[in-house]
Amino acid sequence: MGIETIRWAGRSVRIIDQTKLPGELVYIDCKDVETLARCIEQMKIRGAPALGIAAAYGLVLGVLDAGSGAEFEKKVDVTLERLRRTRPTASNLFWALERMRSVAVANRQEEPHRIRELLLEEANLIFEEDRKVCQQIGNNGAVLLRDGMSVLTHCNAGALATGGYGTALGIVYAAKDQGKRIHVFADETRPLLQGARLTAWELMRKGVEVTLICDNAAGSLMRRGGVDCVIVGADRIAGNGDVANKVGTYGLAVLAKQNGIPFYVAAPISTLDMELSDGDQIPIEERAPDEVTRGFGLQTAPEGVKVRNPAFDVTPHELITAIVSEEGIARQPYAPILKQWAEKGNAEDRARKIGRV
Amino acid sequence: MGIETIRWAGRSVRIIDQTKLPGELVYIDCKDVETLARCIEQMKIRGAPALGIAAAYGLVLGVLDAGSGAEFEKKVDVTLERLRRTRPTASNLFWALERMRSVAVANRQEEPHRIRELLLEEANLIFEEDRKVCQQIGNNGAVLLRDGMSVLTHCNAGALATGGYGTALGIVYAAKDQGKRIHVFADETRPLLQGARLTAWELMRKGVEVTLICDNAAGSLMRRGGVDCVIVGADRIAGNGDVANKVGTYGLAVLAKQNGIPFYVAAPISTLDMELSDGDQIPIEERAPDEVTRGFGLQTAPEGVKVRNPAFDVTPHELITAIVSEEGIARQPYAPILKQWAEKGNAEDRARKIGRV
Repeated sequence: MGIETIRWAGRSVRIIDQTKLPGELVYIDCKDVETLARCIEQMKIRGAPALGIAAAYGLVLGVLDAGSGAEFEKKVDVTLERLRRTRPTASNLFWALERMRSVAVANRQEEPHRIRELLLEEANLIFEEDRKVCQQIGNNGAVLLRDGMSVLTHCNAGALATGGYGTALGIVYAAKDQGKRIHVFADETRPLLQGARLTAWELMRKGVEVTLICDNAAGSLMRRGGVDCVIVGADRIAGNGDVANKVGTYGLAVLAKQNGIPFYVAAPISTLDMELSDGDQIPIEERAPDEVTRGFGLQTAPEGVKVRNPAFDVTPHELITAIVSEEGIARQPYAPILKQWAEKGNAEDRARKIGRV
Repeated sequence: MGIETIRWAGRSVRIIDQTKLPGELVYIDCKDVETLARCIEQMKIRGAPALGIAAAYGLVLGVLDAGSGAEFEKKVDVTLERLRRTRPTASNLFWALERMRSVAVANRQEEPHRIRELLLEEANLIFEEDRKVCQQIGNNGAVLLRDGMSVLTHCNAGALATGGYGTALGIVYAAKDQGKRIHVFADETRPLLQGARLTAWELMRKGVEVTLICDNAAGSLMRRGGVDCVIVGADRIAGNGDVANKVGTYGLAVLAKQNGIPFYVAAPISTLDMELSDGDQIPIEERAPDEVTRGFGLQTAPEGVKVRNPAFDVTPHELITAIVSEEGIARQPYAPILKQWAEKGNAEDRARKIGRV
């Protein structure tokens, strides 16, 4: 069954409210930039590739009623500024905004309605590219999976994190389409339970066998031989192959290494940030304490307790067996091949300006 | 402030209902074996040493109104059988039941009221010993902590897991009493959140600085240098030093090793099971799926999703820097010193019969 994570709906951006899953499948029509920005901040839409698409459409929202000349440019700038400060870690958001900004700048002498048209075309292109890119990631990665394998994944790097296919789960879907039986262990992924709420939901919907575990159970499962490989997505990949992804990813990579299990990262090249030579330079978002202390509407920790709630962590490249993108499969040393990928996709040019325009 | 995890209340066992913490401090009077057994199964009382105490008083409950001779013996047997099948992993429960059974057997020719008296004395002794033992563990372990250290702990191995002082947290309390400033990172410990609900609560109550984190955040915290050592409790320790403890412990040990951080286990020698040559022989309890899928009263995973929910995992001895008991600090190789400890405490004799009487 198709999952419409996000789409342009004429004069609004329609998204699935992912905070309501798996209980309800509810859509939100974001009719202005502020509504969309808050949906991103509240993680009603999340996942690095999906954030890129959302940001692109967000810029279109921002200029829907803009007049010409300076007014148009001002609206572009204000929209870019608002969307840039939604979430700091995922590259794709900044990458997509930069693509959109370039289109606006290159066509600044056009009539407003024409720039709007071109911006919508660019956003649609980013959306369509994402589907093709994810399918290509899936096809490239499927060779890593053999019939009967058990894959462990963390958070959600599936249809709900992208334009509708998935990166890590795209590999699972492609392998399934090739007739391989794949079983997935989904980490529930505290604090926001994207694994329990989203990954389990979309895998069941797509007919993939899934078993839910607490994040804490991943280690003993690996030690007892239950896991054949780990596949996760990525929010930002530095030039040396260090990967920022949902908090807990680093721990899984260490456990995989300890148990001789391959650890794969699946991501589009729009996730690369060649400006950063290593992962320790990636900004890590710290989110609100109440995601931890009352994540389910119920107070589960003492009032006033001090909390640390980083949303991401960094996995050093030496713990990563391979990185799968639409361009192929990279293995260590990552730096040269990531550079090649980035150049091929013109990603380097874009990345140079990420968040620094 | 004192925390009365458990006490004998005349004709009942009074326990704190730990499932209600941190919201409410509520006591339950268990007036019969079945009520107590269910409280153990539902983890209203938990923690290996506390389960030993509860089981000991449970046997007293079972013979409160027993007649003489065969009837008394029958009640002892039925009570032992019921309490033994509450939870399979913690040694201390079986160890305490065996101590109690020995007293019943040794005094079988006495009048029922006299055997009851002796059984209550033995249960009180187990309770009192626990306090002394935990304080000794604390004193022995405190030398491992320097002023200003940050300790990471998992689950709850504190006052609420014992007769009122704690094993892993006993070391923190003892260090604090020596004037050292210790900061604790408490893993929230999914699925039942003993870290968030119990460890954070008791540390705040006792004036120890505590920061709550999701289990997933422990790895990056270690990698970034925020953790000076890890201290956990144990549910069962095999003869070679392999440790069964709350699920997630193994992952922390691997992460500690990867980051060059000492990993300590604190437990009384009643946790030793010298019958088992290694940890893979320790029975691991699998608990109900709804602890994972609706742990907070709210459905957080799709209806009908398959779940694996092991309550414990096994940490191989080679990942453990030291084991602290009331007898001292053991380092690798563990087998000879654990054997010595077990013999000293007559634990070997008791362990030989654990669960197999």
